[in-house]
Amino acid sequence: MNLIETLNWRYATKKMDPSRAVPQDKVDRIIEAARLAPTSSGLQPFEVIVVTSPEVRAKIREIAWNQAQVTEGSHLLVFAAWDHYTPERINHMFDYTNEVRGFRNEGWENYRQMLLNTYPKRDAEVNFQHAARQAYIAFGVAMLAAAEEGVDCTPMEGFDPAKLDEILGLRARGLRSVTILPLGYRQEDGDWLVKLAKVRRPREQFVSEVK
Amino acid sequence: MNLIETLNWRYATKKMDPSRAVPQDKVDRIIEAARLAPTSSGLQPFEVIVVTSPEVRAKIREIAWNQAQVTEGSHLLVFAAWDHYTPERINHMFDYTNEVRGFRNEGWENYRQMLLNTYPKRDAEVNFQHAARQAYIAFGVAMLAAAEEGVDCTPMEGFDPAKLDEILGLRARGLRSVTILPLGYRQEDGDWLVKLAKVRRPREQFVSEVK
Repeated sequence: MNLIETLNWRYATKKMDPSRAVPQDKVDRIIEAARLAPTSSGLQPFEVIVVTSPEVRAKIREIAWNQAQVTEGSHLLVFAAWDHYTPERINHMFDYTNEVRGFRNEGWENYRQMLLNTYPKRDAEVNFQHAARQAYIAFGVAMLAAAEEGVDCTPMEGFDPAKLDEILGLRARGLRSVTILPLGYRQEDGDWLVKLAKVRRPREQFVSEVK
Repeated sequence: MNLIETLNWRYATKKMDPSRAVPQDKVDRIIEAARLAPTSSGLQPFEVIVVTSPEVRAKIREIAWNQAQVTEGSHLLVFAAWDHYTPERINHMFDYTNEVRGFRNEGWENYRQMLLNTYPKRDAEVNFQHAARQAYIAFGVAMLAAAEEGVDCTPMEGFDPAKLDEILGLRARGLRSVTILPLGYRQEDGDWLVKLAKVRRPREQFVSEVK
């Protein structure tokens, strides 16, 4: 499948088959795709938590409008963004980059200073919102990677982030949950959406040109 | 290339070859991928503006830290999110969905009412931030689609959104610019980043498991 076909194949799965687990190698490639996703200044200001525990997923389902895919899938990916940009976090990524590349670059060091002089002094909420946007890039990439693996998923914003943060102990790690993504396999019998046409605005309502 | 290879191939191109234009069929597939990207409740709360005009791109470059890719590439995609969720916009998407699918579904209509009862009364800024996140999903998908086409791009947040909105007349259309994405072809000679290793946090710093 090319990317367009992959995008057409996927849909927000409404019913997953609880008897089918996603193999670990597929989960690994989905996570690897999220890890490779581009982010602003390469900071990767988020983490992914993979929840397989049935007990923990049952608790999460309770604070996610009781959406069944949370427990019917085999894996639940939680995208959690940094609650703030701190000097430590910024320096860690710049130091790590220098370590991997084996040298210090003046332009790169100037860029580090620019970030250090602007991000940490901004309001934490502004920084979290910025970090959350980056997580959405990886969230989209993970959905595509799942589809490429023939794995279904259901992107969800419908949950109580504060309660999810509590269940997973995210705040103590400087993280705030942003989106969740159950992975599994569609169970066509019982899925009201699976046979319906995918609907997107026509191109002329979506794109305009400045020539 | 599979998706992992595609993600490894791409990078934030720092120097584009101004003599090479991206063919229209490739641009079309990149836009089609963005159009097919998943969004919250399927609302697609953003538009893509494709700027090819050299004059307009020169103006945009001035308010985008003079980043040369804006004019060295052949196409500039501007992702602009809805400034608010209005009843008209929500109804348009639900009505259109019913039209395409050829029937009204009670659950879907209840869902429409739930959105109508919550989104429009929220603060416009909250709604814009939510819409902007959806645009980031399509922004990520567009970057992958470009890479699949062998087309380079440079994701950019570094520009003055208010001034870009003015240049493109976006506010009058209920839109606010979120990100820009020049499309073109790398010019290796002169690109400081092209030969450097891609750096991402190691998996153990990016992923954790709850078993």
